[in-house]
Amino acid sequence: MNSGPAIDADRVIADLRELQSRTGDDDGAQRLCWGEGWRSARGFLGELLAEIGLDPEIDEAGNAWAYLSGESKPALAVGSHVDSVANGGWLDGALGVMAALGVIRAWETSGETPPKALAFVDWADEEGARFGRSLFGSSCAAGTFDPEELATARDAEGRRAPGVLAENGVDLERVLDCASRLERIDSYLELHIEQGPILESEGIRAAAVSGCVGVERHRLRFRGTVSHAGTTPMDARHDAGLAAAETALRVEEIARSEGGVGTVGAVELEPGIATAVPGTASMLVDLRHPDRDALRRMLESVRGVADESANRRGCELDQEPVWAIKPIAFDEELVALARRACESVTGTAYRLPSGALHDAASMALRVPTAMIFSPSIEGVSHSPREDTSDEDLAAAIGAFGLLANLRITTAS
Amino acid sequence: MNSGPAIDADRVIADLRELQSRTGDDDGAQRLCWGEGWRSARGFLGELLAEIGLDPEIDEAGNAWAYLSGESKPALAVGSHVDSVANGGWLDGALGVMAALGVIRAWETSGETPPKALAFVDWADEEGARFGRSLFGSSCAAGTFDPEELATARDAEGRRAPGVLAENGVDLERVLDCASRLERIDSYLELHIEQGPILESEGIRAAAVSGCVGVERHRLRFRGTVSHAGTTPMDARHDAGLAAAETALRVEEIARSEGGVGTVGAVELEPGIATAVPGTASMLVDLRHPDRDALRRMLESVRGVADESANRRGCELDQEPVWAIKPIAFDEELVALARRACESVTGTAYRLPSGALHDAASMALRVPTAMIFSPSIEGVSHSPREDTSDEDLAAAIGAFGLLANLRITTAS
Repeated sequence: MNSGPAIDADRVIADLRELQSRTGDDDGAQRLCWGEGWRSARGFLGELLAEIGLDPEIDEAGNAWAYLSGESKPALAVGSHVDSVANGGWLDGALGVMAALGVIRAWETSGETPPKALAFVDWADEEGARFGRSLFGSSCAAGTFDPEELATARDAEGRRAPGVLAENGVDLERVLDCASRLERIDSYLELHIEQGPILESEGIRAAAVSGCVGVERHRLRFRGTVSHAGTTPMDARHDAGLAAAETALRVEEIARSEGGVGTVGAVELEPGIATAVPGTASMLVDLRHPDRDALRRMLESVRGVADESANRRGCELDQEPVWAIKPIAFDEELVALARRACESVTGTAYRLPSGALHDAASMALRVPTAMIFSPSIEGVSHSPREDTSDEDLAAAIGAFGLLANLRITTAS
Repeated sequence: MNSGPAIDADRVIADLRELQSRTGDDDGAQRLCWGEGWRSARGFLGELLAEIGLDPEIDEAGNAWAYLSGESKPALAVGSHVDSVANGGWLDGALGVMAALGVIRAWETSGETPPKALAFVDWADEEGARFGRSLFGSSCAAGTFDPEELATARDAEGRRAPGVLAENGVDLERVLDCASRLERIDSYLELHIEQGPILESEGIRAAAVSGCVGVERHRLRFRGTVSHAGTTPMDARHDAGLAAAETALRVEEIARSEGGVGTVGAVELEPGIATAVPGTASMLVDLRHPDRDALRRMLESVRGVADESANRRGCELDQEPVWAIKPIAFDEELVALARRACESVTGTAYRLPSGALHDAASMALRVPTAMIFSPSIEGVSHSPREDTSDEDLAAAIGAFGLLANLRITTAS
């Protein structure tokens, strides 16, 4: 497949290392959105864009855009996010940003005019690590963000979101205006690390992502009877903690049988002391599946077993939805193109759903979208241990560059 | 059985109500040891003793004693504790103290000299609710307390135990000197509420207590691998939380099959968020059984299933003993006497082990000891809802008075 100037993967990796040396430390990446490290990363992006004669434009939600004209419009957008969690990994988000830059750089330095315009985007606050709302910039652009969600949010130091955003030139009341940027694009591509162990275990160096799983997150609260651990016979107990334990184990079974994932990441017992049978147990259940019906079945099953367990133990059960998002399928044609690009570079065609959310999930609601994943060593992410071998990075960057060029040269 | 002056149960109940009106509020009994409410309760005890011409002596550990001479020595000791947990019940401890006073009052006001001397005792800090060390005063007397246990302890407000004790005239370095008080007694009897549901459910109004169960309390810590709840397939997980959940359910099975009780009252997951598979789960397991061998088997079984669960899930397991006490059997002759006294008053002979610890467990290590339990409505204790009907209280107080007199008149 000959389809335009090849991306320089070594340069992309070198840019990633330079970014990490400027904005990371021994504890990992320190690019928490709206803070010093993030602004410093944005400054570095500005330098890299200036090098190829481009000047970033910041939109109303704080997203950074840069445009390279082509023979036709609208543009293909390529991007990801440069913000990180505290003590994060060097590749999460940054890989996609630097690869997107690499795509633009390849065309710019080739002297050729791309058959289709290109838009580079660095989304603001993908992680939501400071105020708890992830996919901020991309969901503003997609129109799925409600400014109320951040109006009263505070960070760990008690600082309020509107003030912190204002310091970064973002007026919370105007963030949805950035949606006009989408009028200039007709598709979106993103490279990201998998943040899971599948590709590594399958020996896959780059893979097409078919979409993002749906998520159902619920709080289950069992209310039994607190009683003395020494004087209450086993048959006279209404142990809320054991109802929660049973339900957690059934969540695992249900996720396995539906081929999804299900996690109980948080449990709180009250009074929570050695000498009392727990009177209350509150747990968070997170269910994910790429298929909407399967996700619905998982939720129904979990509700059923929780009810069953509560009844058997004489406990009351409250269920409260915490958060949910429907499964988002990426564009079939673009996913097939991504699969071809990966096969062309690595020799293996593979596609998988993403268990995590990405800015691409926001974009997929508005324009044809696809992603490529590179493997994550041991599946580790959001940690200074997050890593991918240079060889695998180069393969995924090469596949992403090829995918972008295939889109530019075939869709124009 | 005619055996000396009958205890005035109505007066004992009236004293209990007066104590509660002086030292309790709508949230329950407020007699946390070493504090204002406790000192006020001690003041009321002083008034009640003065009424029958006795003056309490405070020993080196803060226990209050009063002696009534008899035709022979050493004395029979009767008592319990007037301290409560915060927002406690009106009967826990106080019932035994007021009944003990009732025994002495009956002899004193009868004008007869008891065939055997009587010692009244109100133990200090049975609950350990402030510094975490229960049975303080009685274990000082029994010589099983190590002053080091409280040397650095702080209460919830950060105040250190030695200073708080000193304010109450207790020098932590001299508390073991109170053991000399035991030279004056040759047996100990205590009335207490059951704090469990057995007597109520069996329709028993007063019962002999055969001893206190042994306790094995251990912290189990499972260490798996923290990973992303969305991107980690079910088969690639090392979920420490599920290992803990499995173990908690097996603790229940093991306790049932051995006829003891087993409780997981506390669980902590790390990082403890909805989006992460728990990397660490720490749990407290409390096992109790009146039989030493059965208790040992329970502990071995729990260790075995925890190991099994950790292995199956690829987790490491740390086990740390937190606290243990061997089962303590009360004196067979005195227990039989207590059973006879209960039968004589209520028409039913019954005996049961205590699942909770009592000052009598300290005394049983030094002198022949027995207890009588009255029922607790719904088994509730350590709560303002703690209660026993006046009829049941009167029956248990009557049985206790009879037991004390049987001991005085037959053992002298």
